[in-house]
Amino acid sequence: MQMGIIGGGSWATALAKLLTDNGHAIHWCLRSETSIAHLQKRRHNPHYLSSVYFNPELLTLSTDAAATIAACDTVLICVPSSYVLETFQYLPATAFEGKRVISAVKGILPTEKFQLLNEWLHEKFALPTEHYFTIMGPCHAEEVAAEKLSYLTFSGEDVPAATAIAAMFKTDYLNTVVNHDIWGTQYAATLKNIYAVGAGIAHGLEYGDNFLSVYIANAADELVHFIRKVMELKQAPDAGKINYSSSVYLGDLLVTCYSLYSRNRTFGNMIGKGYSVKVAQLEMNMVAEGYPASRGLYFTNQTVLAHMPIATTIYRILWEGLPAAEGFAAIEQVLQ
Amino acid sequence: MQMGIIGGGSWATALAKLLTDNGHAIHWCLRSETSIAHLQKRRHNPHYLSSVYFNPELLTLSTDAAATIAACDTVLICVPSSYVLETFQYLPATAFEGKRVISAVKGILPTEKFQLLNEWLHEKFALPTEHYFTIMGPCHAEEVAAEKLSYLTFSGEDVPAATAIAAMFKTDYLNTVVNHDIWGTQYAATLKNIYAVGAGIAHGLEYGDNFLSVYIANAADELVHFIRKVMELKQAPDAGKINYSSSVYLGDLLVTCYSLYSRNRTFGNMIGKGYSVKVAQLEMNMVAEGYPASRGLYFTNQTVLAHMPIATTIYRILWEGLPAAEGFAAIEQVLQ
Repeated sequence: MQMGIIGGGSWATALAKLLTDNGHAIHWCLRSETSIAHLQKRRHNPHYLSSVYFNPELLTLSTDAAATIAACDTVLICVPSSYVLETFQYLPATAFEGKRVISAVKGILPTEKFQLLNEWLHEKFALPTEHYFTIMGPCHAEEVAAEKLSYLTFSGEDVPAATAIAAMFKTDYLNTVVNHDIWGTQYAATLKNIYAVGAGIAHGLEYGDNFLSVYIANAADELVHFIRKVMELKQAPDAGKINYSSSVYLGDLLVTCYSLYSRNRTFGNMIGKGYSVKVAQLEMNMVAEGYPASRGLYFTNQTVLAHMPIATTIYRILWEGLPAAEGFAAIEQVLQ
Repeated sequence: MQMGIIGGGSWATALAKLLTDNGHAIHWCLRSETSIAHLQKRRHNPHYLSSVYFNPELLTLSTDAAATIAACDTVLICVPSSYVLETFQYLPATAFEGKRVISAVKGILPTEKFQLLNEWLHEKFALPTEHYFTIMGPCHAEEVAAEKLSYLTFSGEDVPAATAIAAMFKTDYLNTVVNHDIWGTQYAATLKNIYAVGAGIAHGLEYGDNFLSVYIANAADELVHFIRKVMELKQAPDAGKINYSSSVYLGDLLVTCYSLYSRNRTFGNMIGKGYSVKVAQLEMNMVAEGYPASRGLYFTNQTVLAHMPIATTIYRILWEGLPAAEGFAAIEQVLQ
């Protein structure tokens, strides 16, 4: 496999570290020329995980996504969901012909149809679903940089190919899990960010640890309920065999909701303390994925029709001006 | 209902607060005469939740368990599992005749048969199972004292009676859930303490947040697997209808594993850092319930025969001298 990476943030940098630690040469597309110059001269990404040093012989760096894709047979996409359309807007319809795509994108794309990346790539580039894979799981990039043991799940309808991809990333500090579920893992990654915003709101409203644990347990239940409904709609193979108490579903929800460093939780905390969405975003100076995710999920659920009182309430708080305290007073009533 | 409470620790004090906040008079049996004198004179328990003040008109205090039980129709037992036998050793076989018992005991009794409290009360006092109820759930006593919204689950095969009991405890800061599952809730309360010791060990061994989330997700899976096997053995009614992603199962596991103040986690942390069990206990000067629980559960599982690699490994670390790092190297391999 000749691997290309699109994206230069902390998660892309962590994934590049895993591949190059295993000796794999990569084509790596970053947005910024200065980051590339720095990587070439100083051997590390100046803005993200700057303690991670790369072997320059393994890196072919570029700001040109089309060139990076053309040079590879397998393309790892690792940009925030809101930047995907912009990143690929000038690509020809044949850009992904014969390629395999691995997604590390967590969220729903801001298209009119609120698509997952595989749905959009299928529509726009005719990418077959069996050429699509995901990398998801509870994995702070900082802990990969520190080589703390972590687990990532590689999913694809083509399980042998997913297994081969996983093998490229496995190191002594990274264990890999393989399954076939590209739908559930992507929605789980979307939902956990929404629930983490809610955990932050609850904290901002001064609920305690007892409440937080009840909230997260019920969020886990709602997450699984949503995925099961999606599986029915998609008639996904082997849907009944999925273990939702594993790292990529429950584990990722836990690390995101409990981490004090999560952007989503910090963003929610400000909302709970009474800041407006706009002010919270300005103060944080970055995007909390849970914010657009709550909207994408809300509209996706117009079709899925799952019972989602928690996610829906968080959507209403973030997008429809429902006061946070009022929203959580309603959530209190549905928790078990 | 005329309610009696046996036990004077922080959780008993929190439950006494809930009842008396609702205006219910209680008979309350504490071990220490000085605590009783203090409660009478200063209106609060000197050793536990000392910020909680009681209305003395609602309290009938005693050090005599038999007298407290005799004076009541409903007896709430709230002592550590290792003290239950000692507390009730001199009671006549008829002591619980016609009484209802509510258990807030979390763990397995140190009898030869490794019984739950209801099994032991049934054997020794012929207490019918339908007169037995449990109060379980993710509830730090300190947050009840601070009136932070919490959730408790009241279980009993006699669901209408469990509902009536729950109503005595419900306040504006305490929501109640009712179910029929006395088996699962008691084993969940036992297991969560074992897994919390393990979370502490992992922390002591310097695993990070990514690993912890994977460990807890897999522990949740193992917990549910064990309870399902128990349900089969007990032919428990409506076992299939239980929602294991609710507060009393998953929620309690989360609050116990993630709380930095949990005794079980602190105890485990010392084991992970290389202290012996004996030294860790001496240093802490108190009992971490997860320590005896791991043994009780291990022997219970000789009959249940659930696949419990995590709980079994923690038992081996705590009771058979398996080095913690070696145990967790094995746990790493089974996590998904």
